[in-house]
Amino acid sequence: MPQTYAIHKNQHHFGWNNTLPPVLKIAPGDIVEFDMLDAGGGQIKPDSTVDILSSYDSSRVNPAFGPVFVDGAEPGDALKVTFLSFSLYNWAWTANIPGFGLLADQFHDPALHIWHFNPDDTVVEFSPGGRIPLKPFPGIVGVAPAEAGIHDAIVPLATGGNLDTRDLAEGTELYLPVAVPGALFSMGDGHAAQGDGEICGTAMECPMKVTVRIELQKGRQLKYPHFSTPGPVTRHLDAKGYEVATGVGPNLMASARDAVSQMVQFIADRYRMRPIDAYMLCSVCGDLRISEIVDDPHRVVSFYFPKVVMEG
Amino acid sequence: MPQTYAIHKNQHHFGWNNTLPPVLKIAPGDIVEFDMLDAGGGQIKPDSTVDILSSYDSSRVNPAFGPVFVDGAEPGDALKVTFLSFSLYNWAWTANIPGFGLLADQFHDPALHIWHFNPDDTVVEFSPGGRIPLKPFPGIVGVAPAEAGIHDAIVPLATGGNLDTRDLAEGTELYLPVAVPGALFSMGDGHAAQGDGEICGTAMECPMKVTVRIELQKGRQLKYPHFSTPGPVTRHLDAKGYEVATGVGPNLMASARDAVSQMVQFIADRYRMRPIDAYMLCSVCGDLRISEIVDDPHRVVSFYFPKVVMEG
Repeated sequence: MPQTYAIHKNQHHFGWNNTLPPVLKIAPGDIVEFDMLDAGGGQIKPDSTVDILSSYDSSRVNPAFGPVFVDGAEPGDALKVTFLSFSLYNWAWTANIPGFGLLADQFHDPALHIWHFNPDDTVVEFSPGGRIPLKPFPGIVGVAPAEAGIHDAIVPLATGGNLDTRDLAEGTELYLPVAVPGALFSMGDGHAAQGDGEICGTAMECPMKVTVRIELQKGRQLKYPHFSTPGPVTRHLDAKGYEVATGVGPNLMASARDAVSQMVQFIADRYRMRPIDAYMLCSVCGDLRISEIVDDPHRVVSFYFPKVVMEG
Repeated sequence: MPQTYAIHKNQHHFGWNNTLPPVLKIAPGDIVEFDMLDAGGGQIKPDSTVDILSSYDSSRVNPAFGPVFVDGAEPGDALKVTFLSFSLYNWAWTANIPGFGLLADQFHDPALHIWHFNPDDTVVEFSPGGRIPLKPFPGIVGVAPAEAGIHDAIVPLATGGNLDTRDLAEGTELYLPVAVPGALFSMGDGHAAQGDGEICGTAMECPMKVTVRIELQKGRQLKYPHFSTPGPVTRHLDAKGYEVATGVGPNLMASARDAVSQMVQFIADRYRMRPIDAYMLCSVCGDLRISEIVDDPHRVVSFYFPKVVMEG
């Protein structure tokens, strides 16, 4: 009979380390409810102003909740994590943190936007303009790496971690390559909404509760995370189509910057918004895609902005 | 009163060159119907076998149909191209051409798949397994670059060209940065279907007819192509969700290869298909996305395979 367990806000760690003692041991098939602080570890509050960023303590950033030891998990297995449900509180934040983000060279000043909503809301208003559909997921979800020592929580690894991948949402089944006995599963960094790329460096960052079922696939031999979504992934965004900016050139990173840079300017111009607001808006709802990767020596990277956000 | 013109199969050129004489002069607002050979320039036939690839003449590859001179177009303007309608013939081809494609290091042998369909079909069967929804678009669409000389047709440029971008489909409005007087617009490389990335190096390559309206936006000062889609872009693919493989690491190209490589193996294993067939299938229906680009020094690239293709 599967059991249900809870992981509390204070049961967290910073960075990945395969010697961390588990806070919970479970059997495959069990269900775990995580109550998670936001990626800032509670430093930013619903009434914070941008000044908070000047005293932001980076040692408290990206707490991961766990680790959970899964009986029988061995290197070579895959941990199957099914996202059963998400529950939001009533607020989130998005920031431009100087030196961080895809256009850090263009946006030097700190900025902070606080989002307010009701826990059951499916759309949230952006005061400079726009309405963003919500789709909660954990930015951090992973198992401990095989390599000894502490691994920075911000860097995604082959074993998962800070994947910041938008479609790890309700109903999705995620498969993670187990690297150490017991897997040592952790999760954190709640996002109420994010586009592919998380281009300004932050999403709609928030505390949240997440319930997952954890199972085991013996001997799957995954190299990287794999996931399976139960249905469409962009129906909440795509009804009115997209504005799309492209970057064309030899380097995918540079072309991604070009595409995003053009789109930020486009949104700022068309909707008379400050560029920094357009940048944060793009981060929570717009998607980076590789339209073309084989026509050497150039590639095409596109940034898709869902029109429903401004016209919905 | 807008006029309607036709561009015929024999009105084409190879590569971009701003000294090419236009085959047609139009006014902004006019409509042009293009009847286009496939990207192989007619070398591959509906009854061809893989042997054709050993005598494939690369000097006949990627014909572009045009160029069309647009009255009043000047550098700094944008040419607005609205894709009004597409008409397929009854076949297409997909190939693995040795040395070309994202996994050229894994797939050394030539392969050719011929697709057969009726012009009004919306889905086509893949004999090794799967049914692929069709969504026609031109792989090549662009205007002449400012730089003198011949520019290889295979390489996409800031002025467009071989963009191979899936959503330049019916109803989409494409904006191209005009670089020379008259713009010198051309189009070619019909694709009946393609996923984002065109990962094996070819799409569902086919002759087709395309009708476009060509207009002018004075002084828009675009750096790269921009487009606007009239509605959702993946509804033909997304109904049953996606299998998603990821690549995690410091280099977007390497992570794209990792993601695609895992997915090809996954599809080949699950559906008992030859890996080369899974590779060509992924090219015509699966999408490369940048899920995460800011968590230095690693990024996450994902390859989305639409389940409806195998389960539809």
